[in-house]
Amino acid sequence: MRALVLFVCLSAGCLAQRPQQCTSPPLLTGSMSLSTANEKLQVFAKYSYDALGKRIRLREIGIYGNKTFIIDWLLLYRQGVVYKINSRNRTCIKKPLSVDFHPLEVPKNATLLAQVVLGSSSGPGQGVLVNTWAGEKQMKIGKAKYMSTVTEFGCIPVSSLLHTDKTGWMVTSFFNNVIGLLDPQQLLPPPFCRGARLETEDGEDPVDFYSLFSEM
Amino acid sequence: MRALVLFVCLSAGCLAQRPQQCTSPPLLTGSMSLSTANEKLQVFAKYSYDALGKRIRLREIGIYGNKTFIIDWLLLYRQGVVYKINSRNRTCIKKPLSVDFHPLEVPKNATLLAQVVLGSSSGPGQGVLVNTWAGEKQMKIGKAKYMSTVTEFGCIPVSSLLHTDKTGWMVTSFFNNVIGLLDPQQLLPPPFCRGARLETEDGEDPVDFYSLFSEM
Repeated sequence: MRALVLFVCLSAGCLAQRPQQCTSPPLLTGSMSLSTANEKLQVFAKYSYDALGKRIRLREIGIYGNKTFIIDWLLLYRQGVVYKINSRNRTCIKKPLSVDFHPLEVPKNATLLAQVVLGSSSGPGQGVLVNTWAGEKQMKIGKAKYMSTVTEFGCIPVSSLLHTDKTGWMVTSFFNNVIGLLDPQQLLPPPFCRGARLETEDGEDPVDFYSLFSEM
Repeated sequence: MRALVLFVCLSAGCLAQRPQQCTSPPLLTGSMSLSTANEKLQVFAKYSYDALGKRIRLREIGIYGNKTFIIDWLLLYRQGVVYKINSRNRTCIKKPLSVDFHPLEVPKNATLLAQVVLGSSSGPGQGVLVNTWAGEKQMKIGKAKYMSTVTEFGCIPVSSLLHTDKTGWMVTSFFNNVIGLLDPQQLLPPPFCRGARLETEDGEDPVDFYSLFSEM
């Protein structure tokens, strides 16, 4: 009987060694860059992410076509609103946010492509062990193929490849991530947004970037 | 006088904190993948790299257009020859190698673009500190813009972006690198190559991949 228990425990231990689909820490602050294979869109963004309060702040600077743009989003999924903030002019556009909040995670039906070391495992600080997962999912902009890379320890997002017929391949890189909120105030609407009325007509956004983020 | 010496030492110390253009370890074994932005070429390769003996072994499997290919190169820069090895058929093609050996390094005239953490610095094993360098250089296939990312500790190659008018953007990722030669024999011509005669006519190679490698 004991041998059987030992055998089961050992088997479970071995199975546990295999990378598991994981959920990223609920509070994260960091940076990300996104570019499309056709070189049309290039975005650099600083983000604050709060999966507990279902809130995301994204301060983007980018190029779409030949135009540069700066956009500052505050996404409050619980309230179902998104603020487009212009801190310089102290103006605010408030819009309904119809999509659901998705935590940063590797989907349960994702397939493990590979576990590799970025850099080297030959010395301390020379590399990081990551898992790359692949699969397909339904997004607002259509059916998408994805490849997500997260760290083995901590399930920190590293990069993500996404393909839809509409956009082609898009590469997102996450970096300078820290666990926790560097500035929780980033996730509150600024005082000058208090009087903003809900606008229901659809504006022209360069891309549905925040849905990309939430659907990593 | 002492104060001056102290001041100079401290200044030097501070300057030393800034990332320096570096040379990768002379012996490396690992894997790499290369793809072009136009999705025409995708290559996965295992490599052995010996900067002391100026030798590289590259075992590639890839897709060019719609054709898959397997190529096994042994580059001996000191002898000025390259072997194209077919281990299954035990055949060998020996060709002259006219390019110089370039060690894996960040060129002296490269500009530091950014120092970032891939993954996170919040916990052990969650990330790696890397430096990204950019510049221009003259390659065999023309003038190229490049962006190279190496680890801060160890100067291990992580990724490289290269743009020439001929090829467009190409992304190379290095992974599972270890310092040292896993199998030094990989850098010797196999016994069945002994009788190979030097062929001087130019064959049709999918891409000048080994020159890309040596000119990271």
